[in-house]
Order: sequence, then C-alpha cells, then structure tokens
Amino acid sequence: MRIFLSGPSGVGKSTIIREILKKNQDIVLSVSYTTRPPRRGETEGKDYFFVSRETFETMIRDNAFLEWAHVHDHLYGTSLAWLESQEHQGRHILFDIDVQGVRQAQEQETPGWFIFIIPPTLEELSNRLNKRGTEDEQTLNTRLNNARQELMAWERYNYLVVNDTIEQAIHDIQSIIDACRCSRQEAIGRLPWLQKIA
Amino acid sequence: MRIFLSGPSGVGKSTIIREILKKNQDIVLSVSYTTRPPRRGETEGKDYFFVSRETFETMIRDNAFLEWAHVHDHLYGTSLAWLESQEHQGRHILFDIDVQGVRQAQEQETPGWFIFIIPPTLEELSNRLNKRGTEDEQTLNTRLNNARQELMAWERYNYLVVNDTIEQAIHDIQSIIDACRCSRQEAIGRLPWLQKIA
Repeated sequence: MRIFLSGPSGVGKSTIIREILKKNQDIVLSVSYTTRPPRRGETEGKDYFFVSRETFETMIRDNAFLEWAHVHDHLYGTSLAWLESQEHQGRHILFDIDVQGVRQAQEQETPGWFIFIIPPTLEELSNRLNKRGTEDEQTLNTRLNNARQELMAWERYNYLVVNDTIEQAIHDIQSIIDACRCSRQEAIGRLPWLQKIA
Repeated sequence: MRIFLSGPSGVGKSTIIREILKKNQDIVLSVSYTTRPPRRGETEGKDYFFVSRETFETMIRDNAFLEWAHVHDHLYGTSLAWLESQEHQGRHILFDIDVQGVRQAQEQETPGWFIFIIPPTLEELSNRLNKRGTEDEQTLNTRLNNARQELMAWERYNYLVVNDTIEQAIHDIQSIIDACRCSRQEAIGRLPWLQKIA
C-alpha cells in the first residue's frame, strides 16, 4: 500500500511522519535517489541512495522512477524497483512528497492514497512560520506564496487533514491508514476464500 | 455523509451498529417506511414510518425512495426526503442495508461509503449460527446459502471489515468513519477558505 503525504512548509508534516512511523511497524518512509552529495550524518540507503548524475539520467531514460524532480540543481527520484522490493517484503510505503511529485505519480496511475495536510487557515500558517523566528520577511513571504500555490492542488488528494492540534492530525491520519488497510483493494488480498466464493 | 453497512446474518452487524451509534452522536440510523403493521413496542418515526400500501405505492411512483424492497409480503423503503431533512440538520446517516438495497442505491449514484462486514471464514459463520441453537438444520442451511450469495457481492463495497473479534471490527469501522470525515468530499465543506484559494 502506498500512502502519499503532502503539506506546505510549516504545517507540521515532519512531526506527523515521525509519529506515524513509530505507530506502524510495517510502514517505511520512501527512500529517494539523489545526485546531491551526502551531508554529514546522512546514511546511504537510509536517508537517500546517493548516485551520480550519469546514473540518475540513465535511470530516467529507463523509466526507473515513479516520480523525479529537479530541486536546487540536484535531482531526486523514487525508484520503482526499490518500491516493489519493499512491497514484496510486506511493507507499506509512506511518501513525503510535494504537489509536483503527486502529479507525476497520478499521471502514472499509481495505486495509492493521497493525503494533504493543511493548516486551519492561511493566517495560522503565517503565525507558525513567524514563530520559528529564523527567517527574514522576504523568505517568509516566499514560503507563504509557495504554500498558497500548493494548497490550490487540494483536489488531487483523497483526504484533507487539518493540522489544528497535532494530536488530532495524527489521530486522523492513523484512522485513514487503518481505513485504507480495510479498503477492498487491500483487504481482498488477505481473503483468498472470499475471492474464490461462488 | 451516508454510510451503508451490510453483512450476512450472524456476522454481528447489530452489535457493531449499536456501538457505533453510541460513539458517534452525530450519526443516526436510517428509519425506513414500511407497510408492515407495527409490532408491540415499535415506535412510529423511531423504528419505522408505518404507512398504508397505497401511500407506499404512491411514493414509489413519485421516486420518493432511495431504495425499496419487497420482504415477506411487505414493502420497506428509505425516503429521500427524510434523508435530506436529517442531513440538513447536520446529521450523518448509517444504513443497515442488504446487498439488494446497496445495488439500488448505487444505481442511483448515491454518494456514500459502502462497508461490508464479513466473517473470518464461512466455517466460522456456520459455527456462530450453530451456537445460537435456535434454528433447525434446514433454516441453518438456508441462512448459510443466503450468506454465500450475499458475500459474492463483495466487489460492490469500498471497505471489507472482517469481524474476527468484535472489538477489532468496531475499531476498524470507527477508523473508516473517521477517515470518511477527512475525505476530500466531506472535509472541503468545512473549509470555505480552501475552496476559494487562488
């Protein structure tokens, strides 16, 4: 099962992902391929798969990616082979993915559940970004404009989860995951007798 | 929001419905119209709306029903006007409905969530029906055959919930309801600012 999680910067996505991974031992976070060099403390195969630009471009030509993107001069992508190997081992995959990535995944008609984490209001998102206090006004405005752009894509998602309180947001996403486990598409695989009924 | 719950006789549907209604004060059970005379203890408007056959047939001609059925010489049906009046008051509706009713509702392209409660296996369903001890073997066989027939309709449902333990089944259905509240179709109504974003 593939669960795609998006949300604008500052909405609390990282905290939610950490909690969801703690609660669901059979769910792993998608590990991307990237041409960016590793930063201190990053581990190959855990944070990213680090590859050369040449290798990455060969993978693009071979349609080896579910989605890929250009970000700040570097390439990032989700390998279909990696995905399938994880699923073969009985794991479900959680994607921390932006609107562009979701668009690409949907163009490939990926089976999956698309969840959009949204702030209670745009003002509240602005407050949260302000509270971080680490950015100048221009950076803040850029982030808010990007957020507004991203939020316009809400129709692409199956679920809209408002992060008003983090506890409620985690509860809602956990409910969505538990419901997805009961979806006909997922559940029927565990019910061979029902498939064969006649 | 309309939640349609089906499941073969003996699968534990009544217990599940009772618990779900307790936990969700904004969900009401659908009240049907019927031509059957009231039984002792049944209340008009709570258990059923009791009407004459003439009234019922007029309602059929007026397309006043979401679905209706003939059961043991009596007519039963769900009134669209009743549904809409409940929804207007902010209530969600839970339907205790059989496969035939689901078929009719789907032919009318009702927006809704369709949940099928199934036994862990057919043998287990047989055991549960046996334990009731109130029926002769022929009645039991009829019930099992009916169950097998109904279970063949699993592809009509969005969700398949296995009632292995009642606690797990209630948890799963509650998760589905909570997820449905977060579905784009439901959630966007609570987010006027997001609808207008540009």
